[in-house]
Amino acid sequence: MSTSSLAERYRATRATTDWICEPLITEDFVVQSMPDASPVRWHLAHTTWFFETFVLKPARGDYRPFDAQFEYLFNSYYNAVGPQPFRPMRGVLTRPSVAEVRRYRAHVDAAMLELLEQYGGAAGVVVLGLNHEQQHQELIVTDVKHMLSCNPLHPRYRDAPVRASGTAPSARWIDGTDGLVEIGFGGDGFAFDNESPRHRVFLEPYQVGAHLVTCGEYREFMADGGYRKPEFWLSDGWNIVRDRGWAAPMYWEPRENAWWMMTLSGVRAVNDAEPVTHVSYYEADAYARWAGARLPAEAEWESVAAAYPMAGHFLESGNFHPVPARDDVPGGPTQLYGDVWQWTRSAYSPYPRYQPAAGALGEYNAKFMCNQMVLRGASCATPGSHARATYRNFFPPEARWQFSGIRLARDA
Amino acid sequence: MSTSSLAERYRATRATTDWICEPLITEDFVVQSMPDASPVRWHLAHTTWFFETFVLKPARGDYRPFDAQFEYLFNSYYNAVGPQPFRPMRGVLTRPSVAEVRRYRAHVDAAMLELLEQYGGAAGVVVLGLNHEQQHQELIVTDVKHMLSCNPLHPRYRDAPVRASGTAPSARWIDGTDGLVEIGFGGDGFAFDNESPRHRVFLEPYQVGAHLVTCGEYREFMADGGYRKPEFWLSDGWNIVRDRGWAAPMYWEPRENAWWMMTLSGVRAVNDAEPVTHVSYYEADAYARWAGARLPAEAEWESVAAAYPMAGHFLESGNFHPVPARDDVPGGPTQLYGDVWQWTRSAYSPYPRYQPAAGALGEYNAKFMCNQMVLRGASCATPGSHARATYRNFFPPEARWQFSGIRLARDA
Amino acid sequence: MSTSSLAERYRATRATTDWICEPLITEDFVVQSMPDASPVRWHLAHTTWFFETFVLKPARGDYRPFDAQFEYLFNSYYNAVGPQPFRPMRGVLTRPSVAEVRRYRAHVDAAMLELLEQYGGAAGVVVLGLNHEQQHQELIVTDVKHMLSCNPLHPRYRDAPVRASGTAPSARWIDGTDGLVEIGFGGDGFAFDNESPRHRVFLEPYQVGAHLVTCGEYREFMADGGYRKPEFWLSDGWNIVRDRGWAAPMYWEPRENAWWMMTLSGVRAVNDAEPVTHVSYYEADAYARWAGARLPAEAEWESVAAAYPMAGHFLESGNFHPVPARDDVPGGPTQLYGDVWQWTRSAYSPYPRYQPAAGALGEYNAKFMCNQMVLRGASCATPGSHARATYRNFFPPEARWQFSGIRLARDA
Amino acid sequence: MSTSSLAERYRATRATTDWICEPLITEDFVVQSMPDASPVRWHLAHTTWFFETFVLKPARGDYRPFDAQFEYLFNSYYNAVGPQPFRPMRGVLTRPSVAEVRRYRAHVDAAMLELLEQYGGAAGVVVLGLNHEQQHQELIVTDVKHMLSCNPLHPRYRDAPVRASGTAPSARWIDGTDGLVEIGFGGDGFAFDNESPRHRVFLEPYQVGAHLVTCGEYREFMADGGYRKPEFWLSDGWNIVRDRGWAAPMYWEPRENAWWMMTLSGVRAVNDAEPVTHVSYYEADAYARWAGARLPAEAEWESVAAAYPMAGHFLESGNFHPVPARDDVPGGPTQLYGDVWQWTRSAYSPYPRYQPAAGALGEYNAKFMCNQMVLRGASCATPGSHARATYRNFFPPEARWQFSGIRLARDA
Repeated sequence: MSTSSLAERYRATRATTDWICEPLITEDFVVQSMPDASPVRWHLAHTTWFFETFVLKPARGDYRPFDAQFEYLFNSYYNAVGPQPFRPMRGVLTRPSVAEVRRYRAHVDAAMLELLEQYGGAAGVVVLGLNHEQQHQELIVTDVKHMLSCNPLHPRYRDAPVRASGTAPSARWIDGTDGLVEIGFGGDGFAFDNESPRHRVFLEPYQVGAHLVTCGEYREFMADGGYRKPEFWLSDGWNIVRDRGWAAPMYWEPRENAWWMMTLSGVRAVNDAEPVTHVSYYEADAYARWAGARLPAEAEWESVAAAYPMAGHFLESGNFHPVPARDDVPGGPTQLYGDVWQWTRSAYSPYPRYQPAAGALGEYNAKFMCNQMVLRGASCATPGSHARATYRNFFPPEARWQFSGIRLARDA
Repeated sequence: MSTSSLAERYRATRATTDWICEPLITEDFVVQSMPDASPVRWHLAHTTWFFETFVLKPARGDYRPFDAQFEYLFNSYYNAVGPQPFRPMRGVLTRPSVAEVRRYRAHVDAAMLELLEQYGGAAGVVVLGLNHEQQHQELIVTDVKHMLSCNPLHPRYRDAPVRASGTAPSARWIDGTDGLVEIGFGGDGFAFDNESPRHRVFLEPYQVGAHLVTCGEYREFMADGGYRKPEFWLSDGWNIVRDRGWAAPMYWEPRENAWWMMTLSGVRAVNDAEPVTHVSYYEADAYARWAGARLPAEAEWESVAAAYPMAGHFLESGNFHPVPARDDVPGGPTQLYGDVWQWTRSAYSPYPRYQPAAGALGEYNAKFMCNQMVLRGASCATPGSHARATYRNFFPPEARWQFSGIRLARDA
Repeated sequence: MSTSSLAERYRATRATTDWICEPLITEDFVVQSMPDASPVRWHLAHTTWFFETFVLKPARGDYRPFDAQFEYLFNSYYNAVGPQPFRPMRGVLTRPSVAEVRRYRAHVDAAMLELLEQYGGAAGVVVLGLNHEQQHQELIVTDVKHMLSCNPLHPRYRDAPVRASGTAPSARWIDGTDGLVEIGFGGDGFAFDNESPRHRVFLEPYQVGAHLVTCGEYREFMADGGYRKPEFWLSDGWNIVRDRGWAAPMYWEPRENAWWMMTLSGVRAVNDAEPVTHVSYYEADAYARWAGARLPAEAEWESVAAAYPMAGHFLESGNFHPVPARDDVPGGPTQLYGDVWQWTRSAYSPYPRYQPAAGALGEYNAKFMCNQMVLRGASCATPGSHARATYRNFFPPEARWQFSGIRLARDA
Repeated sequence: MSTSSLAERYRATRATTDWICEPLITEDFVVQSMPDASPVRWHLAHTTWFFETFVLKPARGDYRPFDAQFEYLFNSYYNAVGPQPFRPMRGVLTRPSVAEVRRYRAHVDAAMLELLEQYGGAAGVVVLGLNHEQQHQELIVTDVKHMLSCNPLHPRYRDAPVRASGTAPSARWIDGTDGLVEIGFGGDGFAFDNESPRHRVFLEPYQVGAHLVTCGEYREFMADGGYRKPEFWLSDGWNIVRDRGWAAPMYWEPRENAWWMMTLSGVRAVNDAEPVTHVSYYEADAYARWAGARLPAEAEWESVAAAYPMAGHFLESGNFHPVPARDDVPGGPTQLYGDVWQWTRSAYSPYPRYQPAAGALGEYNAKFMCNQMVLRGASCATPGSHARATYRNFFPPEARWQFSGIRLARDA
């Protein structure tokens, strides 16, 4: 990538973050509505901290940090950089103000753009920083959604440009490539370290669902006592169902014999044609068992995805909710990317011969390879340029606040 | 009180709340830094809700509520009015915005002032509402202090106009009135229902300390192993000392062989001449036992206080921290009012023949008469017109975020 | 008391403990069914430890402890003696065995009896130790009841010799002595330090219920929505009602339109004529408010009790459940003692000029004078010789596993 | 297997359980020292319940259950059979007594042996029941160890017949079979459903350690700050290290500059030549990272193990602690089986095309396939006939109370 195009991309990525924040008022930037979420203000500062810590400080001996205390204050989890504030306390801090954080961003932007114009060597860390910012763009959207959902006034985030009514597609299965296949990233562009190395995996014959599981299909599972019958559930999942009283996907609520849902564009009736979202791994797995199927292994998902071009409704659509399936891949699978992340049955583990990046950046992915499940695809809150076939997203099996949904698989 | 002076007092009280909020930025209004605290925004709205609910709605059939949902949203604990949001969630709500809450205040203020000008009958609930607002003025100060203390940047709230250096006074004891005494409110003005009725109590001969316990005296207790020796402590207090690692009053921190403290005007060295504050009942009680004394019973405190005129440094001084003792009552006790609340040994119980107010307002005090200890006097964050000899403040014995301090007593 | 009669009393008290344990199997001695309870084995060892620690070791330089490690192992909460095992771990220890603990008792009994026959001086600590053992006799009964209640097989402890059917007495009120009264222990015999000194209290005119509140009366409160209406409850109590789902006294369970209860003699239908028991202070207080009355202050209770002779059904009756009222005090109050402890509205506080005993024994009562409510009377699990008018029992307001019930009071 | 040999095996397996319980006193059978453990009494009853529920009731219409309530009382987690007592309450039940549970075992044994002599058809469920009992034999040992470790008296379980001093072997690596290998159970005998089906896996070239990691090697990790440096740890593991203050394997304790350990034969100094045990997955993983290696994938472990005959020190040795390596496989790996289970890097997931057993027995393994890591080999507490190369043991990554240790692997 040329240095000028990298500067361009830097500007564009940072601008997208601003665009996401446009509908928010100052108050919205401060709150942490649960320990797993972060205040928007923190996201804005931490992504800036990333460039300051990993690009500007190493690259320029004369770089003057905006505020020396921010090195500590906006460190997320990089122990090699130093200690960090206790995570659940992020939402208790009201200073620096949102305006000050914006000044921090401007300060770092200026230094970054100056640097990028003179950049001669490898731009790897800058590109990593931009991908990092894209991940936080998605998190801002999902964290804001959670925060607004706690408010009995049900505030909207922004109107959706498109409100596709749509019809649910008929169930159909796609044959996957089996035998000894190759997965993982092996190309030239950017990928996170956890997608490497490209390696061989042996797969038995299998099929994956052509379409995402819809709200209508999921409601059949619910109507059949899905949340009341332990035989569909993993033991840990069943305990959570009972302890937390789960009876529907997150953000659904019953109203006079109908299910409604909270979306970022307001509360409305559940549309049966839409992909179901905000389900945990436990719910995805239970649904699959009820349906006589299973979730795909990540190697299966990737082998199927590799055979089709990438397309989808992403963050840029401004449609902060999954929409009904489009038939843009005749005969092939729909909605592999965009709309909702798809839970796989694969625990998040290192690939064979995986090597974390050196130094503090090795903490980016490697130390989380336990107690999490892999999701594939991308969602309506993912920037389009951030999606790819080899991408490994991961969350704990009980997480529901991401746009996570279900694609089935079965043995052929 | 004439209706015009009541309107005047309404204006003045509401203006004091604004004055307290002056140094705050929008972000500061949103956060709830612990379950016992509330966001400033909530305090502003709830005190307004009080007038809307208990004055405007009953008094004027044509009153148009600012927002029908606020009846639920800003109810604190009045079950007779209806359900309330879960208290620890107050800090998750970002809407209505601070600006909207200010409009809510303006809307209610207009209606209240219109009403007050025509007010003919008993103004009791309005006066209660003003006293209620004064209580929340103090809570805003203490909640803001706690919130800012969580921030590693140690932001200041506002500068203190006076920084009294002072000298700690010499210990001296005041004889109290003993035998059959009368306590409780029996006058004409305003008092909370829990101060009534005036009634007789029998007291053995006793003395109370002329001065508040100072930081210097308290440091002697600490130096003598006060926080490490169980013999000084109530059993519940000792468990907390060990579980939470208490080793000094709240907001104190050790720095290179000296104790520093966080105040609303910045972090600075502990001044030995100042009254100690931010101690729990457990610490006050342990200190008293170490000192060979005890805490006063509330009837003892009140009997002493009744013999002296009221004076003190209150909220209006703009000095949001207790200052060293003044010798404005020659021979008598100092700092009975203002500076710090004084823990008594009395559990918060109903007075004989106590009758809660009728209706929802009966929930104001009565339902908290369990598991709390009475504090007397007032603090540097209490509005001066809110203090009186019969006032019964109450908090759980482990509470430390109020300006709570120690006055000793002993058997004569 | 003569030394021979003290030895006699020692033998008798220790034998009563054995009699209480008779129906238990070895397994029953080991379990701690909740943190507030203790294993029977621990009660047997700790009461023995008390004599060894506070009588034998100080009195006889040549006393050989049964096992040096027991000084630590069976210390309950005497910090002045040394550290103690973490209380909730009492139920994890299986050794020393029950047989070994019995040998420990025999060893100490032999040394104690030898000592008592030569005792010349004050026998105060021995008598304290016997009263201490009597308290643990009651706790063994209540802890065993709780433990058995956790077992779905509903094992019985022992059959009741008497199953009084009875008729509920009509409501009636007794005038109490008002004005300046004296309460507290001032006699010659034994009393705990917390009952002293005898002192004056001023009381307004009042009445107390002649009878205990019965199950039938309490069921009216339940039928009237007592557990669903916040207006009857203290705030802390209402939170517990909702969090724990309380809807009846402890050990009650609904069965096909009737209430049944677990007793130590088996599960059976609730008898409306019996005093209600296993209610918390919160429930007692809520019932009283619903009934348009209140709970008595402890000084009121004691002033009434002082006017009547002591009688009641105690531990020795072998009737481990309260029975319907007897009319053995014509015109006077029934069941002041025995059957059930009666919650008062008084927080457990030191009496004026109270002085704890010196040394480690000062920890017996003084350090618990916070967050607890006083109960008066005695229960069906209290040894008869342990009851007296000045006795102050105390438990936290949420405690329900003691035989605690309700006597009403009202202003006259 | 002939019916007579099956009866023989039934008798022998049940007798082994009795032998394990020989050193225990009645009290030891009752206690549950943590929620993950169970009382011995419960293990004895539950394994009996298994035969009654899954063999006797289906096979014999005339079978008379010992006690109808036991179906509920001793169900562990089989939802298809019915509800179960809340797991942490197992240790609160004192009845049925240990003697009654032994009568229950005798009753079922008599019925089983009668049945086995007439058994004509498939004996699958009986063999499953015997393997189930063997699993509980190991759990009894580890649960007793945990329970005794809580006792400050440090009681021993039984003396070890052999106290091997030994010398730690030199580090050495074994080449594993790579490429497309087959793993999983495909033979004729018994295996759990989770070991099937046999299937192909592609492996990159790798090596596994010839020896288990020893206490001496692990102490080097500790001396190098292993428990203080976050760079060695998974994020979840590091949080636990800090929250629980882990600084050594479970059951180790520092004594005057040396490490001692609690074993079932008493407390003694750590022997550097022994395999380290009672480490969690997090510790095993951190040690491997520190050592510049990694843990083996389960397919790697199994491929190596398949090439060597099975041998080891098992439960039958009566040596309830791992012993130093023997050189009984010249040139090959030592201690693949017995001594300690070996953590793998593999999350516990279903094999491709895995099918759980039908009915309630399908709950045996399948519903736990989440949040757990696979361990391979067997331990000093595993019955020898229970070990095999395809065996998949599994525990959560923080579990330490099993005899779990470390075998390293590395990329070749």
